[in-house]
Parts: sequence; structure tokens; C-alpha cells
Amino acid sequence: MSAIASQPTLEFWYEFASNYSYLSMMRIDQLAQDFDVNIAWKPFLLGPIFKSFGWESSPFVLQKEKGIYVWKDMVRQCKKYDIPWKKPSVFPRNSVLALRVALLGVDQPWIGAFNRRVMQLNFAEDREINDQTAIAEILRDLGLAADQLMTEALSDSNKLALRTQTEEAQRRGIFGAPSFFVKGEMFWGNDRLEDALHFATQRA
Amino acid sequence: MSAIASQPTLEFWYEFASNYSYLSMMRIDQLAQDFDVNIAWKPFLLGPIFKSFGWESSPFVLQKEKGIYVWKDMVRQCKKYDIPWKKPSVFPRNSVLALRVALLGVDQPWIGAFNRRVMQLNFAEDREINDQTAIAEILRDLGLAADQLMTEALSDSNKLALRTQTEEAQRRGIFGAPSFFVKGEMFWGNDRLEDALHFATQRA
Repeated sequence: MSAIASQPTLEFWYEFASNYSYLSMMRIDQLAQDFDVNIAWKPFLLGPIFKSFGWESSPFVLQKEKGIYVWKDMVRQCKKYDIPWKKPSVFPRNSVLALRVALLGVDQPWIGAFNRRVMQLNFAEDREINDQTAIAEILRDLGLAADQLMTEALSDSNKLALRTQTEEAQRRGIFGAPSFFVKGEMFWGNDRLEDALHFATQRA
Repeated sequence: MSAIASQPTLEFWYEFASNYSYLSMMRIDQLAQDFDVNIAWKPFLLGPIFKSFGWESSPFVLQKEKGIYVWKDMVRQCKKYDIPWKKPSVFPRNSVLALRVALLGVDQPWIGAFNRRVMQLNFAEDREINDQTAIAEILRDLGLAADQLMTEALSDSNKLALRTQTEEAQRRGIFGAPSFFVKGEMFWGNDRLEDALHFATQRA
């Protein structure tokens, strides 16, 4: 316990609908181990934040040129990192259910595996992630009490907790995902994950 | 000549008003040498492209949260790359004159040094770059016929050439700066410069 307590911590703010969060999700466990940094998992909803900017969808949908580019970039980035990729036929996908379940697991040993599995559904298998059957199957495959967790995930208190987490993201100035916080400093985007980890390991 | 002709080429589309173009500008000569890649210099105006999206300024100005972040990111990125940095008190700066001069030099031996000097004025010294005296001074310091070049830069044909180059950027789907093209593939952002150079050196 004391070894973990003395490790620096990186907060990982992620969204299951976000393709660049997918890249970080598939890389972060190994990197955190390499850098000897602890991960604080922070699932949140990007939609309300985009809405606060007056955007009705992702900038990758609203900005045609950027959208065309992003899917080419994803092919190259996934190849670079050796991560499977299948362009989602629906983007951005409704991620509320999966985020609610993730929020229950942030301090549980299954969170990393659950996160990766949800991301793979969306970005490697082109499947819906707002489907109770699919999410319950992931939980069961992890040896968990799926029915009980689904009930908890859909409870009013947990729904409120995800809204509160999203408000916290907004209050912190988060404007996209993934975002990382280390010692109060924000780092935005998968391209800054290594920088954030370096910063975490620097002495004050 | 034949050695250069056989080198792969990277097109570097840059804007003197763009802070992330600054990072690439200060790094690209050494990197191009390391990767043995030829640079095709492509100065262009980002303003008309932003206007075509309905934006009256940079997204770093229009989007408050992103703007706050970007200047923190620049401090960290400049530290990482060991590049001098002074936050410009005016952003984005009017870059038309400097871009017009750069366009005259794209095939000249002085283009790299000129580009870096203009970028340093803006992002290391917090000085205007639309100032004829300052730009002429850079040209003179490079041993060039400043008066003649300034006259050429302000000629109707050169003004038209910069507009044409900017239209070409738009036609290619460029939506930000810096952007790189290698073998017809676009790479966006200073964070993709190394990827673009790797791609340039890969065999088909």
C-alpha cells in the first residue's frame, strides 16, 4: 500500500466515444508501469462540454476537413502503436451506459480491462457500446456480478455521480478528451500522454 | 543535384502567425537533415481558411478554454525542445507581409534563416512581423537586397501568388498549421512532424 501511496499519480480523463481516448486507453497501462506512475481513472461525458461551446456534435463531425483528416490519422496512429482499428460506422457513439459502469469501477481491479474492452467494441469491432447486453457480457467475462453492477450503474445516485464528474471536468477547463492532470497541470490529447508521465516523475 | 533530386520531399505548409508552426520551424532543418529529406517550403495564409469555416479568428482566441491551455502547452513544448519562448502580446499577428517575402524565397538558400528569424520576432521577442522596417532588417542581415525584395514582395503578381497558394492549401483540405504533405498524404500539427518524416523515408 505504501509503495502505491508514494507513487506519483496521473489523472486520466477519458470518454468511450472519443477515438483519441481509445489510443491512450490501449497504451496507458504499459506506460504507467514503465514510468512507475499510478493512474486515477476519470470517465466523463464530453457531450455536455461540447454543448457548452454551442456545438451539437464532435468537431470531427462539424468540421468536414478535420473529420476527413482524423480518420486517416487514426489509421496511421493505430499502425504506429500496433493497435487494432476499424472505423466506427456511427460517430460519436452514445457512451453514457458504459461510462456509468466505468464510474462504479474506478477504484476496482477490473477497471482497466473493462475500459479496454469497451473501447475495442467501439473502435476495433464497430459495435454499439450503449447496449445493456454487450456491457453485461463484458462484466460477466471479467467474472463480475453483471446484473448487480448494471442495477447500480443505472441508479439515480450513480447517474448523478457521472453528471458531477462531468461538471468537475468542465470546472477544470477540460475541452476535449483524453485529458491528463498531473500535479494540477493539464495535458490534452493522446500526443501528450508521454509528456504528462514525464512530468509526473519529475521532482518538484 | 542528382542526390537532392533522389531525396524524398516533405512539403511544409506554415503560417508565421501560428505558434505550432513556430515549433516546427525551429526543428525542421535539423530533422530534415537527420532523415535525409528535402523540404518544400509552403508559406500560406491561415486567416482565409478560418474565415471559410465561419471563424473570425484563431480557435485559440474563439475557444476560451483551449486558448488558456495552448499557452501553457507552448511553455512546456518550448522547454522540451529547448526553443526560446515569449508569449506574444498580440495573437494572431498580421503575417501577410512576412509571408509575401517568404514566398519569394521558397527556392532560395536564405529561406530557412528568414523563416526562423520572422518566427523568433513573433514568438521569442514579442515583436510585430507586419512591419516593413523589421522585415527589411532581417533581409539585410542575411546579406540580401532588401529594398528590391520588398518591392517584389508587394507587387501585384506576388500578392496574387500568395492568394493562389492559400487557395491551393484550401483545395488540399488544409484546416490548420503546420501541415505536412508527403507522397500526397497530409499530416497535421507539429506533433506529426516526425511521423511525416518517417513516412517520407519509407519505401513504397
